[in-house]
Amino acid sequence: MEEILAHINAPQDLRKLSLEKLPQLAKELRDFIIDIVSTKEGHLGASLGVVELTIALHYVFNTPKDKLIWDVGHQAYGHKILTGRKNIFDTNRQLGGISGFPKRSESEYDDFGTGHSSTSISAILGMAIASKLDHDLHKQHIAVIGDASIASGMAFEGLNHLGVTDVNVLVVLNDNAIGIDPSVGALKKYLTNVKDGTAKDENIFECLNLKYSGPIDGHNIPELVQELERLKKVSGPKLLHIITTKGKGLKKAEDNQVTYHAPGKFNKSTGEQIKSIKQKEPPKYQDVFGHTIVELAEQNKKIVGITPAMPTGSSLKFMMDAMPERAFDVGIAEQHAVTFSAGMATQGYVPFCNIYSTFLQRAYDQVIHDVALQKLPVIFCLDRAGLVGQDGPTHHGVFDIAYLRCIPNLIVFAPMNEMELRNIMYTAQNGLDLPIAIRYPRGKGATLNWKNKFEAIEIGAARCLKEGSDIAILTIGTLGNQIYTLLEELENSQVVGHFDMRFIKPLDKKMLKEIFRKYNHIITIEDGCKTGGFGSAVLEFANIENFSTPVKIFGVADKFISHGTIDETWEMAGIDFDEIKNYIKSTSPCD
Amino acid sequence: MEEILAHINAPQDLRKLSLEKLPQLAKELRDFIIDIVSTKEGHLGASLGVVELTIALHYVFNTPKDKLIWDVGHQAYGHKILTGRKNIFDTNRQLGGISGFPKRSESEYDDFGTGHSSTSISAILGMAIASKLDHDLHKQHIAVIGDASIASGMAFEGLNHLGVTDVNVLVVLNDNAIGIDPSVGALKKYLTNVKDGTAKDENIFECLNLKYSGPIDGHNIPELVQELERLKKVSGPKLLHIITTKGKGLKKAEDNQVTYHAPGKFNKSTGEQIKSIKQKEPPKYQDVFGHTIVELAEQNKKIVGITPAMPTGSSLKFMMDAMPERAFDVGIAEQHAVTFSAGMATQGYVPFCNIYSTFLQRAYDQVIHDVALQKLPVIFCLDRAGLVGQDGPTHHGVFDIAYLRCIPNLIVFAPMNEMELRNIMYTAQNGLDLPIAIRYPRGKGATLNWKNKFEAIEIGAARCLKEGSDIAILTIGTLGNQIYTLLEELENSQVVGHFDMRFIKPLDKKMLKEIFRKYNHIITIEDGCKTGGFGSAVLEFANIENFSTPVKIFGVADKFISHGTIDETWEMAGIDFDEIKNYIKSTSPCD
Repeated sequence: MEEILAHINAPQDLRKLSLEKLPQLAKELRDFIIDIVSTKEGHLGASLGVVELTIALHYVFNTPKDKLIWDVGHQAYGHKILTGRKNIFDTNRQLGGISGFPKRSESEYDDFGTGHSSTSISAILGMAIASKLDHDLHKQHIAVIGDASIASGMAFEGLNHLGVTDVNVLVVLNDNAIGIDPSVGALKKYLTNVKDGTAKDENIFECLNLKYSGPIDGHNIPELVQELERLKKVSGPKLLHIITTKGKGLKKAEDNQVTYHAPGKFNKSTGEQIKSIKQKEPPKYQDVFGHTIVELAEQNKKIVGITPAMPTGSSLKFMMDAMPERAFDVGIAEQHAVTFSAGMATQGYVPFCNIYSTFLQRAYDQVIHDVALQKLPVIFCLDRAGLVGQDGPTHHGVFDIAYLRCIPNLIVFAPMNEMELRNIMYTAQNGLDLPIAIRYPRGKGATLNWKNKFEAIEIGAARCLKEGSDIAILTIGTLGNQIYTLLEELENSQVVGHFDMRFIKPLDKKMLKEIFRKYNHIITIEDGCKTGGFGSAVLEFANIENFSTPVKIFGVADKFISHGTIDETWEMAGIDFDEIKNYIKSTSPCD
Repeated sequence: MEEILAHINAPQDLRKLSLEKLPQLAKELRDFIIDIVSTKEGHLGASLGVVELTIALHYVFNTPKDKLIWDVGHQAYGHKILTGRKNIFDTNRQLGGISGFPKRSESEYDDFGTGHSSTSISAILGMAIASKLDHDLHKQHIAVIGDASIASGMAFEGLNHLGVTDVNVLVVLNDNAIGIDPSVGALKKYLTNVKDGTAKDENIFECLNLKYSGPIDGHNIPELVQELERLKKVSGPKLLHIITTKGKGLKKAEDNQVTYHAPGKFNKSTGEQIKSIKQKEPPKYQDVFGHTIVELAEQNKKIVGITPAMPTGSSLKFMMDAMPERAFDVGIAEQHAVTFSAGMATQGYVPFCNIYSTFLQRAYDQVIHDVALQKLPVIFCLDRAGLVGQDGPTHHGVFDIAYLRCIPNLIVFAPMNEMELRNIMYTAQNGLDLPIAIRYPRGKGATLNWKNKFEAIEIGAARCLKEGSDIAILTIGTLGNQIYTLLEELENSQVVGHFDMRFIKPLDKKMLKEIFRKYNHIITIEDGCKTGGFGSAVLEFANIENFSTPVKIFGVADKFISHGTIDETWEMAGIDFDEIKNYIKSTSPCD
């Protein structure tokens, strides 16, 4: 059979095909995605699930004139391949390569950058109102959003506005009953009723004044094309409900949807994951959290766990399995997660609210207004803090130190290793009367034997790892390990003192005073933004205390950091260990 | 007639009354609220609207054992009066007096502090799950939420979780078709259909798996009591839809609901507002915004205005009246407001997105992820920045400098006066290719003749207001006026230079270098938090440039600032002009 995909360099090529050819194209597109992702890694299941939809949308609508937004965006691989990025798709998520998410600067077909969920309805409505003001009545505006994402508050706000407009917006609800983990919540239950036919006659979307159609089979291209053609002629806001299977076309991915959301390398024929045989490795930080909360919750019956739609990613899954009545997946609902935690804290419960650093941005007001202002001892566990590598700028957790440090009553802590994470979790649940944010990175820890006996950490107490004579390096979090290693390699490292500051807030002022008195140079290192970050906190301290010792701050520069490996993103950000080494050498009197 | 209210010191007193006495109590309570608020000021309409509901809830439920949360909280005056605060109610919103909002530390009857909208469902659900874990199956949990607040995304997230639980939560939907301004959106339209009986048979709340009852008359005490008694015996999550009139019982307030949300002093018999005859005064900053956007939008057809439910408070109302097709009230939906603005910006429109500083916390992620990351030139106008006085800690806009300064690509500006606000608005809409946040305070400006001809402001350029020889004072925003006056009163003020820095980001590095080179002492003054704020930005600058000139930072201390007059809150925060004056005197070589 001739290859169809080979001749598709843009959607206009696609539109020249007869309808009959499209299923073959779908097969080729699916194979192409599997082929590349099996070796280059990335998000798999979501893109496989929308292959037919992607083809149908670009076939029916006049992209890029018509506007198309992919909510969350990790399902847009097919879209990228069909819109001129087929030949560079193998650079996906690599330094200098294409982004794993839609990105405006990358293509005129990427109408809106996505990454965080549930933004698409608001953004497409803005575009549609713009078209209306431009008197462009024929332009179409499409948002594709999953059932997990449409249940998030922001999407509801968009629908609530959309329903009182008369603009040409089509919301395609891609209902596969799963986000990264299975969807939860009343709306999901309702959508199931709709599919079963047990829902009564007025549809929830009709209540919001949208024209509803569906549900239809999202893998049936003729049906999709026919319905999209029809809807193109229906003016005003409308919602098309389609049913798809995440991972469609790769049996392993269909059967193991959570694992195959982003499976790493796999055998493209069998789907079998390729796991390199490794030496025993340190655990992921998320697993340290996941195992430790279960261990603590077995002792402290007041502990509860909360995650907004990340049971697997945060490893709260362990607690959900072990004690389901005390661990809650509330869906993509960070705002609710935080205030729900606050409500439990008022009743004497000890909530561990686990939210990725980048997603806590979604609940910033709730941290201030519902938790810190009321001094409710919620324990925030901020996974994926710092630079996250291939997911890139939408997902880096680099602002948390700056945006949390200014909140009164809030303790902010970063563990240097697994034991520190365990000990601060132990400390936090043991009668702490203030809220605390514990930030730790994506990826693996530093220690094989990490299941230490718990020890309480004194709030606000830093650790001296190594005394020196001339230069003091103050680290926050796991970057301390890199510095530790670097110092071991450095000649004349005896001049360098190394301090794991642990608490960004409150600072250990006593130890800082000693450091500023003793050392001639201070270096601070953090994997967060330098603007307003930990280094700034040290400057504020020095200013109040009238210290004039020079302070050199290493951290994330004031720019959005692109995607790449963790090491590459660190370097882009300005956390360059060679530079740090050179700086130490240049300031050391012994060199 | 004997006075009933005089004998109610707690809800248990209320519960001893016969049902027949309650309407008389309602009348007395309403009169009491009107009596105090007419002279002491505060929120009026919302509390008048829920007098009967307040009585009925405390009559039927066993508060404080049963949990009761008032969403937003400005309608809780009756609640406060019935729960032991009658005799101190005349201290409402005053320094040292009771808060205008429910506050946990104030009373055991205030189960959750509110102020920002739409938090109640999440918080009450947290409490209800706690009761379930405590095996307390009889405890009741009630959230009272208005129709404007329930349409906000966060409330939907709470409902979506609530609907899949089996806990005893009663959501009372207080439907009065108004927030501060009239409610908007598809849900509001739907609720109107429900009231009219034109909605079809399955209710939107039933779709979300809640037991729905109503709508009933929220001013009919017997009906309310009967229905609440019934619902007390219904287990699981349920929603009672009641219809009320905001401002009920004071004709002026019923007829002018927007004005009488918080009318200031008024004649308690006639309702007539008492307006002191004043000299011509400078305008409110919000009105400078409101008039200026209309003026600019008449010239620049691409300008659009967006407000999340604050047309009156932001004065975007002027534009909504003048050019309704280009000005949008999107309801209590800050997240949507920001990303909707971003969507319009992608199409070449120039959105002015006006959000109170404290409420922009609700859309922090959208500012980062949807606007700044994509370099979309959205113009954020942050009203009520700085300390806001009587509304207190839930509403102070003191974190914005810190939380915005760390965002790459974002310009942050604070005008010192009306002309500066006009000029930066002019500058921002005139082809600026980056997003900008313009922060200005609550209240009145400084100038009578403020309608200046527009002049462009150079991005990043500070202003020297006055040269000096020894001390440089760097101000941000309208506090510059207080310093200007203070310097006029100061002997030896010739030693003091005064600089209106205007841009928190980007800093005017050129001018800062000159200042640091010339002056021996630097003072920074801001009406935002000192932690990570403008002063810290100056420290970061000095650190990078190796300046060691001492810097003294005045700003909001690292604590939540209580309510009081603006001057009192400044003093509590540590912005004490006498201290500033003394500091200048103590550092001046001439003294």
